Amino acid sequence: MALPFSNTAGRTLERLRNAFVDTARGAREVVGAPLRPDLPDDDIPRLKNRIDACLEGKGGETARRGRAAELGQAYLSLSPAGRKKFLLTLAHDYGLPREAALAKVERWRATKEPPRALVKTLEPPAVRLLREFVGVPQGVKFVVDLRAELLALGRSDAAARTLSEDLRPLLGAWFDVAFLDLVRIDWNAPAALLEKLVAYEAVHAIRSWRDIKNRLDSDRRCFAFFHPRMPNEPLIFVEVALVNGLAGNVQRLLDAKAETSDPQGANTAIFYSISNCQQGLAGISFGNFLIKRVAEKLAHDLPNIRDFATLSPIPGLRRHIDDRLKTEGDAALTPGEIASLVPVTDEAAGAAAMRMLLDRPSWWDVPAIDKALRPILTRMAARFLTTTDEKGRALDRVAHFHLGNGAIVERINWLADTSTNGLKQSYAMMVNYRYKLGDVDANHEAYAAGKVVASREVRAQAKG
Amino acid sequence: MALPFSNTAGRTLERLRNAFVDTARGAREVVGAPLRPDLPDDDIPRLKNRIDACLEGKGGETARRGRAAELGQAYLSLSPAGRKKFLLTLAHDYGLPREAALAKVERWRATKEPPRALVKTLEPPAVRLLREFVGVPQGVKFVVDLRAELLALGRSDAAARTLSEDLRPLLGAWFDVAFLDLVRIDWNAPAALLEKLVAYEAVHAIRSWRDIKNRLDSDRRCFAFFHPRMPNEPLIFVEVALVNGLAGNVQRLLDAKAETSDPQGANTAIFYSISNCQQGLAGISFGNFLIKRVAEKLAHDLPNIRDFATLSPIPGLRRHIDDRLKTEGDAALTPGEIASLVPVTDEAAGAAAMRMLLDRPSWWDVPAIDKALRPILTRMAARFLTTTDEKGRALDRVAHFHLGNGAIVERINWLADTSTNGLKQSYAMMVNYRYKLGDVDANHEAYAAGKVVASREVRAQAKG
Amino acid sequence: MALPFSNTAGRTLERLRNAFVDTARGAREVVGAPLRPDLPDDDIPRLKNRIDACLEGKGGETARRGRAAELGQAYLSLSPAGRKKFLLTLAHDYGLPREAALAKVERWRATKEPPRALVKTLEPPAVRLLREFVGVPQGVKFVVDLRAELLALGRSDAAARTLSEDLRPLLGAWFDVAFLDLVRIDWNAPAALLEKLVAYEAVHAIRSWRDIKNRLDSDRRCFAFFHPRMPNEPLIFVEVALVNGLAGNVQRLLDAKAETSDPQGANTAIFYSISNCQQGLAGISFGNFLIKRVAEKLAHDLPNIRDFATLSPIPGLRRHIDDRLKTEGDAALTPGEIASLVPVTDEAAGAAAMRMLLDRPSWWDVPAIDKALRPILTRMAARFLTTTDEKGRALDRVAHFHLGNGAIVERINWLADTSTNGLKQSYAMMVNYRYKLGDVDANHEAYAAGKVVASREVRAQAKG
Amino acid sequence: MALPFSNTAGRTLERLRNAFVDTARGAREVVGAPLRPDLPDDDIPRLKNRIDACLEGKGGETARRGRAAELGQAYLSLSPAGRKKFLLTLAHDYGLPREAALAKVERWRATKEPPRALVKTLEPPAVRLLREFVGVPQGVKFVVDLRAELLALGRSDAAARTLSEDLRPLLGAWFDVAFLDLVRIDWNAPAALLEKLVAYEAVHAIRSWRDIKNRLDSDRRCFAFFHPRMPNEPLIFVEVALVNGLAGNVQRLLDAKAETSDPQGANTAIFYSISNCQQGLAGISFGNFLIKRVAEKLAHDLPNIRDFATLSPIPGLRRHIDDRLKTEGDAALTPGEIASLVPVTDEAAGAAAMRMLLDRPSWWDVPAIDKALRPILTRMAARFLTTTDEKGRALDRVAHFHLGNGAIVERINWLADTSTNGLKQSYAMMVNYRYKLGDVDANHEAYAAGKVVASREVRAQAKG
Repeated sequence: MALPFSNTAGRTLERLRNAFVDTARGAREVVGAPLRPDLPDDDIPRLKNRIDACLEGKGGETARRGRAAELGQAYLSLSPAGRKKFLLTLAHDYGLPREAALAKVERWRATKEPPRALVKTLEPPAVRLLREFVGVPQGVKFVVDLRAELLALGRSDAAARTLSEDLRPLLGAWFDVAFLDLVRIDWNAPAALLEKLVAYEAVHAIRSWRDIKNRLDSDRRCFAFFHPRMPNEPLIFVEVALVNGLAGNVQRLLDAKAETSDPQGANTAIFYSISNCQQGLAGISFGNFLIKRVAEKLAHDLPNIRDFATLSPIPGLRRHIDDRLKTEGDAALTPGEIASLVPVTDEAAGAAAMRMLLDRPSWWDVPAIDKALRPILTRMAARFLTTTDEKGRALDRVAHFHLGNGAIVERINWLADTSTNGLKQSYAMMVNYRYKLGDVDANHEAYAAGKVVASREVRAQAKG
Repeated sequence: MALPFSNTAGRTLERLRNAFVDTARGAREVVGAPLRPDLPDDDIPRLKNRIDACLEGKGGETARRGRAAELGQAYLSLSPAGRKKFLLTLAHDYGLPREAALAKVERWRATKEPPRALVKTLEPPAVRLLREFVGVPQGVKFVVDLRAELLALGRSDAAARTLSEDLRPLLGAWFDVAFLDLVRIDWNAPAALLEKLVAYEAVHAIRSWRDIKNRLDSDRRCFAFFHPRMPNEPLIFVEVALVNGLAGNVQRLLDAKAETSDPQGANTAIFYSISNCQQGLAGISFGNFLIKRVAEKLAHDLPNIRDFATLSPIPGLRRHIDDRLKTEGDAALTPGEIASLVPVTDEAAGAAAMRMLLDRPSWWDVPAIDKALRPILTRMAARFLTTTDEKGRALDRVAHFHLGNGAIVERINWLADTSTNGLKQSYAMMVNYRYKLGDVDANHEAYAAGKVVASREVRAQAKG
Repeated sequence: MALPFSNTAGRTLERLRNAFVDTARGAREVVGAPLRPDLPDDDIPRLKNRIDACLEGKGGETARRGRAAELGQAYLSLSPAGRKKFLLTLAHDYGLPREAALAKVERWRATKEPPRALVKTLEPPAVRLLREFVGVPQGVKFVVDLRAELLALGRSDAAARTLSEDLRPLLGAWFDVAFLDLVRIDWNAPAALLEKLVAYEAVHAIRSWRDIKNRLDSDRRCFAFFHPRMPNEPLIFVEVALVNGLAGNVQRLLDAKAETSDPQGANTAIFYSISNCQQGLAGISFGNFLIKRVAEKLAHDLPNIRDFATLSPIPGLRRHIDDRLKTEGDAALTPGEIASLVPVTDEAAGAAAMRMLLDRPSWWDVPAIDKALRPILTRMAARFLTTTDEKGRALDRVAHFHLGNGAIVERINWLADTSTNGLKQSYAMMVNYRYKLGDVDANHEAYAAGKVVASREVRAQAKG
Repeated sequence: MALPFSNTAGRTLERLRNAFVDTARGAREVVGAPLRPDLPDDDIPRLKNRIDACLEGKGGETARRGRAAELGQAYLSLSPAGRKKFLLTLAHDYGLPREAALAKVERWRATKEPPRALVKTLEPPAVRLLREFVGVPQGVKFVVDLRAELLALGRSDAAARTLSEDLRPLLGAWFDVAFLDLVRIDWNAPAALLEKLVAYEAVHAIRSWRDIKNRLDSDRRCFAFFHPRMPNEPLIFVEVALVNGLAGNVQRLLDAKAETSDPQGANTAIFYSISNCQQGLAGISFGNFLIKRVAEKLAHDLPNIRDFATLSPIPGLRRHIDDRLKTEGDAALTPGEIASLVPVTDEAAGAAAMRMLLDRPSWWDVPAIDKALRPILTRMAARFLTTTDEKGRALDRVAHFHLGNGAIVERINWLADTSTNGLKQSYAMMVNYRYKLGDVDANHEAYAAGKVVASREVRAQAKG
């Protein structure tokens, strides 16, 4: 066998390589000179020779796997520019264009082979190669990260985009939720893991070790999915606060100085942050399973917890409001709303007045402004969250995620996040999506039919 | 969500079910009355309703997974007859016949969709369903065992055979060798696991705990592959003896009373038994990887081990010899061989004499007979092992496996296994296949081209 | 530091030894030539030099520990005869005789030192040395086994007996029950551990792997105490059957072919075997803690279990009955009993008749004999079990153990163990001791005051 | 059994308590009303009743253990003031004064009992009780912390001091180094553990997570001893830097921004911080074993590491120098030194000049001052470190520790720690103690005889 074919550590491979000198010599003939870091154009033919050798599969399965692993290692030794060229070569020269597929279809039609034979021929060679790359040490993470690079390249290159899509079913099979471990993360977790949570947290940035310790306290829960072959890499994680009643203010939740409460006394689990960690797994959904399995687990471990809800940002709201004020002007407001703004400012009226008020720093600290804006913004938020576009999709991406999971729009929270980010996203409003476990299927179906389910209160607010 | 959707234990599921009564009630409407154990014909429509509901996927991914898990549980509660009907229904009514595939091809051709869109439509509904069954507790093992049942049904039912084949790529992705753990098994292994080895051992039956303890002694090694989601189920295991020189007698290796030798003093690793454990994984090869990874590991751990070989049965040999004697008569022997038989018996001559001698109990205990038969049988064995059929395949299935892995036919061992089984398979002969690590690729390629590589000695024996 | 002083594996020690040649050379000067396996008299002075060097403690604590470890290793390389001489030298020449202790008392009295200073001087040098032996790899087990050898020697040598007693407080501190792990052993336990259970089982011999598997089935429990530094060595284990009502026949419990019952349906835990594993820990009690912690655990895990009792042998009973018949003759029986024997045999009368009946093989198979003997033997058993000797101790050692733990004599079981051993010990009778958790303290105190607590039934039987 | 007697969690105990109501009621009679938090004088008799009940031991071993555990729990529910009263009661009323010991000696002398019988009677009742406290959940840590409180009380109370001393042998047996685990701590350690290291670090305070991450980097090592029954509590830990040549500046070592170097290229292990974690284990030495076992481990794992040394503070040096300048004046300096100071300042001369220079902030930044002071301070440091007091003890406590372990004074480092603390302790000087593995025994013995071993360089510096 020409090349190492297992996951054992580099040093062992080295020894084996020395032990079987003839092998190594033979292998080197195939491999040729090593690829240069930037993969200059001269090296491309040699790269393609190696890819071809991998696909040809001489020497049997173990040899093929070994050869692919060596090529994977070669990729790892390239510079960023070299890696990009490697992937583009793969995407452009080893994909399966429609015409090629049509030819394969014709060939199959001429045989008596079953459909699965056709399916087999329709696997693009690039996918066939990348599938073998899992044989590199840490190979699962390696393939996931390759796909992340392809997705990035795919923003400007169609072939890369196609390859990243072609890889999805393979990763979907590998990362079937049934293979994942649901792990609780607390303050006894490895520091190296907590450091990753800090890096991956996508909703409310973790500012310090004190902050993260607070989020892992006894009145909090943090759960993540892990793949057995990526033991140090969370795939997705969710942060939960155990509280009494629906939480309506995220600063209070994140206040590391606040007292820890007794989880046995809480009746509500608030999912206040959920972050995907692996860009290379985009399009493979875990979030719905995570939320529901965590809800199950909490229901089992803490029988006093009866309600499950989120405290979620509304990332598209401010833009929506600003756009409407700009493009529709006073038509964006009801007559009553326009009237209600009069006593607050005499510098402008209607939409212009509202614009002016909203541009004023810390406007909410002025009781009169707060009082005037609250019903208007709340109405706009409620309407925004309960409206779907022509495809039946919620306007806000976070809303789309939770509604698709069967949650409902439960409550809009005024001044729930007055951080810079909160203001920028949604004029400081946040929303609770509630997961009522008995209703999620029906809610999902309703949403699939284009209908957003919301609480009576939110429905009333949307009407104004 | 209508149904439980996770791997948590049954009791929790039960509790959750009670907690969300409405849900359960809703679910029951879909599910209907439970299927009766033997699945009488009246129940088939209800079964198909449930399968359809699973495939339709209402309520989103988590609901779909939960519904499939419930159906999987229902399958588990059936009698053997009921299970058979369940699987045949699936195979016959939820496959993808060629015509249906052709229609899908046409539909795709009419769009501008990429090939992967076609591939997606070509997945048979039955496979789509069984893929979801992994959500049952112990789901991976469940799907593997389902495929084993399909393979058994497939012997008499073409649709079941097709479905078992259609499942192969999915299991191939799940059981990629990169996901497997190579585990050494010794006397500290759980008794429950050792009991399984006893059950799965397919080459030399394990007769007692003393026997298995001997096979796990300090001068032995036993390695198995495990899947992280089937932690208590070996996929395949190999038994190795650490000895000096090529071992040529299996009774001596298996003698539990023989003294244990110092593994540090051995120079050769003899793979004397390799057994697949999961019938449901037929067609997904691990053996080649197992042998080579174990060889690597031994080379690393015990630098004194320089040679790697098997001591293998020749299961097809006796039948081959008997057939040749019967159909070819004296033509099966050389003139010299015919002459050599004369002094041994005067009751018959040539092939008939040989037949008579071989039918005599314990013929090898008679020195004259032993002396006469040895060169003839050895020649026939050597020729048998080095000949290929019209497709270029070795005549013996064990030979085919090792030659395909890049081993060579090294040595034929006379009176190597005088057990009843050894006599029945191969007139007590066994063979060493040698794995010379530097040559396995070239050997594999030679064999792929129809040529069996053998040692000079065996080649000479084959010539007679 | 002259000598290795840690638990790291032998090979590392070897390397270190070579690395620090000067050290080793220095050490060898102290150590001198190695002790010969049988420790001939010529070697004794060299042994004593080494012991003295250990006790002197040059080079500080780590050097002392290292030196003791080397001496411990030297002990391990001796023959059985050599080990015996080693231990006797230690016991005779490094103990602390009373006169030496008196002298130390006088010296202390002359100072103003606190009592702990006196205590320190009263530690025998041999104990001081053996305490250091814990530094040998597997040192805890090593010291325990040394004490077992001392106890054996102590049967014929008073100094060895004294040393074994002097070691007890040290082992008592090391093996405080708070340091032990209570571990459930089931069929997933390592085969090597189960093999030890087979070896250590002291009550009902384990005859086969099938037998042990039966004892670890789902309607059984087996628990053991382990010390964290002897992870592969149980200290004591108990076997429990989960049944309905008091079990009265041990053959039925041990029948490997009997059906396994559902532990959730059981209401009684029967402790049918408890075995100490480490002879070197004689005199350090775990049994009482084991029984009560297992009872606690079962009460917690299986709320349906309400009663806890043993099914125990009565090892001293047959001897007691035979003695009484022999020495007291007819006086051992009541007139009614004597009369009841008349119809059964006419070959003899009274005690002689009884003797004759009991000597008849399988006497219990003859209904008339069974009927005649049952009340007499039961009465004698009841009286035997409820009587104490002049020191207030139960006559039977198993009774003493359970009564001391606070159990009561609950029920005598006729024909409960008709195995050879059961007949030999107690004419096939066994007894249930019941642990009523609320009463054990009071029962213990009653027994401490010389009073055996028994059930109303047993008390009635004892009266005849 | 009246009271819970095991380590199982509180909730289980609670359940059991409710289950066996009679028991609990009985127990409460003994226990009486709960002790009030501050343990007012009225409660003392009830406390003593409970202590007496524990010591009396009614109900047998398990009952005694249970009763002690309840008393331990009662202690935990007291206020700081109450705990103090509890411990003082124990120390004053349950110790063993000399007179009581003398009486026991007399009683023993009148018997024929062996010395161990006397030893047994000399155990103070308080120790007998505290030994049982190990039965509390987390009992080992509990007893250790109790001793820490006794040591603190012992500063002002002789009986508490005596009791803390009387406890030492018990803790010494429990914490024998053979029972401890040597554990490497790296960035994968639990955050909760790293937080403890931050709290326990006694030499160079850890200022941030970045700082601690740096100390656990690939060119660093951190090892700790753990007791198997205190798994989350380090007993002592050491921080090591892998460098080339002796490190002479601690700020450079602690610079979190410095580049990480390759440990394979290092030749020297610098132990730059060693901290005891458990005040309650004062007087039980681990440091010597830790240093030597870590050195062994590093020598084994990294064969390129050839030298082992510390970079240590000299906590007593500045005070020593200041005292000498103050009390001896110019006599503390040599004539050459006095002369060398003249060119630097004309405001004062001799000792007064030196005092003035040393009081100037950042004096070392002025090249002339640095040049003048360096030889004088170095000489004084060398002399300080190589001198012993009348008892043959080094003047500096850190020197005493390392010399006692067999290290030598290798090199004095100028401006090695210019932090506030470094200046305050030792005018920024630090010292390397070198552990030459082959010499440590001889060095230990030399130091035991009152002689400090130092390098030629330091000896020369000491002479001036």
